[in-house]
Amino acid sequence: MNEKLKIIPLGGLGEVGRNMTVIQYGDAMIVIDCGLMFPESDMPGVDLVLPNFTYLAENVEHLLGYFITHGHEDHHGALGHVLPQAPAPIYATRLTRGLIEVRLKEHKLLDSAVIHTVEHDDVIEIGPFRIEPIRVAHSIPDAVGYAVHTPLGTVVHSAEYKFDLTPVMGNTTDIHKLARLGEAGVLALLSDSTNAERAGWTPSESIVRETLERVFERAEGRIIIATFASNISRVQEVINVAEEFERRVGLVGRSMENNGEMAHKLGYLESEPGTLASIGELDGLPDDEVVICCTGTQGEPTSALVRMADGRHPRIKLRPGDTVVLSASPIPGNEELVHRTLDNLFRQGAHVLYQALAPVHVSGHASREELKLMLKLTSPRYFIPSGGEYRMLALHKELAEELGMPSENIFVIESGQVLEFDANGVRHGDSVPGGYIFVDGSGIGDIGEAVLRERRSLSFAGFVIVNLVVDAQSGEVKDLELMTRGWVYRPESEAVLSELEDFVRRMVRGAEPGGNLSELLRKRVGDLVYERTRRRPMVMVSVLEA
Amino acid sequence: MNEKLKIIPLGGLGEVGRNMTVIQYGDAMIVIDCGLMFPESDMPGVDLVLPNFTYLAENVEHLLGYFITHGHEDHHGALGHVLPQAPAPIYATRLTRGLIEVRLKEHKLLDSAVIHTVEHDDVIEIGPFRIEPIRVAHSIPDAVGYAVHTPLGTVVHSAEYKFDLTPVMGNTTDIHKLARLGEAGVLALLSDSTNAERAGWTPSESIVRETLERVFERAEGRIIIATFASNISRVQEVINVAEEFERRVGLVGRSMENNGEMAHKLGYLESEPGTLASIGELDGLPDDEVVICCTGTQGEPTSALVRMADGRHPRIKLRPGDTVVLSASPIPGNEELVHRTLDNLFRQGAHVLYQALAPVHVSGHASREELKLMLKLTSPRYFIPSGGEYRMLALHKELAEELGMPSENIFVIESGQVLEFDANGVRHGDSVPGGYIFVDGSGIGDIGEAVLRERRSLSFAGFVIVNLVVDAQSGEVKDLELMTRGWVYRPESEAVLSELEDFVRRMVRGAEPGGNLSELLRKRVGDLVYERTRRRPMVMVSVLEA
Repeated sequence: MNEKLKIIPLGGLGEVGRNMTVIQYGDAMIVIDCGLMFPESDMPGVDLVLPNFTYLAENVEHLLGYFITHGHEDHHGALGHVLPQAPAPIYATRLTRGLIEVRLKEHKLLDSAVIHTVEHDDVIEIGPFRIEPIRVAHSIPDAVGYAVHTPLGTVVHSAEYKFDLTPVMGNTTDIHKLARLGEAGVLALLSDSTNAERAGWTPSESIVRETLERVFERAEGRIIIATFASNISRVQEVINVAEEFERRVGLVGRSMENNGEMAHKLGYLESEPGTLASIGELDGLPDDEVVICCTGTQGEPTSALVRMADGRHPRIKLRPGDTVVLSASPIPGNEELVHRTLDNLFRQGAHVLYQALAPVHVSGHASREELKLMLKLTSPRYFIPSGGEYRMLALHKELAEELGMPSENIFVIESGQVLEFDANGVRHGDSVPGGYIFVDGSGIGDIGEAVLRERRSLSFAGFVIVNLVVDAQSGEVKDLELMTRGWVYRPESEAVLSELEDFVRRMVRGAEPGGNLSELLRKRVGDLVYERTRRRPMVMVSVLEA
Repeated sequence: MNEKLKIIPLGGLGEVGRNMTVIQYGDAMIVIDCGLMFPESDMPGVDLVLPNFTYLAENVEHLLGYFITHGHEDHHGALGHVLPQAPAPIYATRLTRGLIEVRLKEHKLLDSAVIHTVEHDDVIEIGPFRIEPIRVAHSIPDAVGYAVHTPLGTVVHSAEYKFDLTPVMGNTTDIHKLARLGEAGVLALLSDSTNAERAGWTPSESIVRETLERVFERAEGRIIIATFASNISRVQEVINVAEEFERRVGLVGRSMENNGEMAHKLGYLESEPGTLASIGELDGLPDDEVVICCTGTQGEPTSALVRMADGRHPRIKLRPGDTVVLSASPIPGNEELVHRTLDNLFRQGAHVLYQALAPVHVSGHASREELKLMLKLTSPRYFIPSGGEYRMLALHKELAEELGMPSENIFVIESGQVLEFDANGVRHGDSVPGGYIFVDGSGIGDIGEAVLRERRSLSFAGFVIVNLVVDAQSGEVKDLELMTRGWVYRPESEAVLSELEDFVRRMVRGAEPGGNLSELLRKRVGDLVYERTRRRPMVMVSVLEA
């Protein structure tokens, strides 16, 4: 009992514990979720963002397992990148496991990975931990939180949840287990803060069904519904309503087809024989018997919906009479792409429905009244708002205070900060490496802030490069070339460029022997460029000798 | 009566007539608004975006005047850039004129510009046009739409409006004039589509006052309220509530001070003597007597609020106990910056209120029920949804159809498209140049899509430049340098760079005489770079001779 219990959120800056959380007792540690993030607008060229997993890689001999909460990429999508450097067994429910396997196969890691299927009533004993899954309702079936029993007490990780009492597939959040845990005593709760800004109670998925029914009632032509490929429950709703209205459904796009097939095989997606159809089969049907279910709600340029909106889809051409439904909200940062897609859908003459106009989507996350219910049910001694940006964590803290929790028992901590418990209480421990690791092309972690700064600077005003060949003996200019991109439109810049050339020649002729010619040129050329254009492209000088 | 009447929206792609609309009868033309746009995320380095004003510049001898609807930058801010090439008198109400003058002074155009002040009851006769301003309620006082009477009929341009019946400064939309115009007969209506997605009726500004009163009642420390510097009505509300609660108000930041001073001088901002205070004076007051009114609602890095949030403001340090109110919505595209600012405000320990949490802001634009009212009041023969992105225009069209307007009388047209009326009806005319003109540094129009494409490409993976000095006689490499930025982190790339060097030397040695060495090098180096890193930086090759 002299060992310490540590809780360490990893992942995004200000995003505590959405993608990865370490729970450690003594040396032994388990990891809840191993998800990836998507680059923000100031990370140009970055393909993916991983939680900084240095701490796992450095302590791999004490790493007992990854416990995955659900099948969304931001909760398991980093496994393919992290496992090679920090291998450990993976624990997941059946559908989550299926989705993990799809990704690990792409990374050629399926054979080497050890995966255990977890049932809702299991208790997993591993090292000093006893771990119980807790069924939660979310926008994908088979989601679980975890109660982690340790010698110092029980830590409850809520995962992403809402208290939807009429979900699509009958899996409500296990209120009874949460109540039992609360009565038995919870040391610390980590609870999802995503919707801490939102008053009230998140509407049930059944609202979406009602809206879809109204859409199907009125639509005279084809119905195209876009949603996340991982939103299996939403796809199920589409299938249910389509069957009710005697339409056939095509799942279009690679990820939609793959996930659909997997979920179907595992029994998480149900349809009557003959409901699902290929694009070819749909082509032969009257418009009012067709539903197309595809991706593209975030305006992703390669998605089926965006290609339809642009008129670039090889098989599906939109036409007036089509009804298009975007059944998702824009993820912050994607608004411009989503708006452009909506504009283009309208330009094709389609009738378009999206969340601003009708409840065609509901959030998968608990709103403020539900957050209160979770806090009440589990009645934790300590509370760590989790899975949100800083303002959401801070608001979740204010909410817990309103419920009567003492301020000093609530910890708003950021990526890499360590919360340390022992028999006497809790304190902040030494930090571990937090924040991001970037994936770009084939490289993991080989670009960082410095490279991104260069990219941002280049995007702002391009570059001007002065290539100079100077005679080693006489010091005279033997050849000179200016290269520029992203600075000014070439035909308009001829005058400035020839002025720059003259300027460089004059400077070389007048240069002091032994002076730092290239540094001086860089500065003076930069000044002249700015004087003429009020822009500051990156200026580089290469002086080669011949 | 053989002349044609033309309506031509200019400005943003898919943003019809927000920033600039031409109304032309025969050759004679007037322009409603001359506003600027802000660059979108795929226009890196661009400072400002102007409506394409080529058509005005080419027909300047027929240009009779600019009629400005209100004092927001996106309606008059392009005058300083456009006037030198397309000069004409400016017509504006008193406050709008004051704000225009502030900007023209910065452009050193105040002396040369001809500006006429317009009163709400004026009728301006100019060429074939008779123009009546129509008072409208918007988020700035002294806003007007225009009725343009022409020999072929009356065109009503709504400007940006809402039917706020309890506005801050008593200026409601002139419903009676709109009704009179409707009864007399309106040929065409252009009406603001910004909120065509929003059901119901936009709440009155008085809602904001009620929220502010609740905030002031509860706040024990300083109150910091951020809003647009041009939102004079909101600043007035802050002053009103501050006086009610016996607090003094500091207007902080250059644009906030300048606009405040101008509005005060013209009588559009009223305060009791002693209410307004300098930062120095505020420093000497107890916290519960202080209000700071500043800019920064869009997360602009140089704004007062963002510098407070980052702890970079030289005079104002936030502390726990402060209440911060963001009284504006994020403009689409600014969400990330706004969220970062909110997060940092919470990190400083402030209590923060924003639109997601409380009605601290209301839109200045009419919602769907109000749009219907405008259509009913003016009962136009033809309707042109205006001032919105394509989806909003299309929804506004659907709304007019619901009111019984025939589809074929409603025109969703885009920037540069011409609508042509004569005695027989209406048709699409030949287009004029539409879209954007970019301002970057000192250049207007000297960068376009090509340069932006280069910038985007550079931001994605940087560049690799091969500088080669080849002996003119022997063809052997005399010197070689690789320059790269924004591609990979330098220490990690040493191996790839030296492989590239060897590769280039080998290629030069093996080069066919007469072949295009530099083009071949560019391609093969690009391939090798991609093979090693799965990235595609811009590759350029310079072969100089010595």
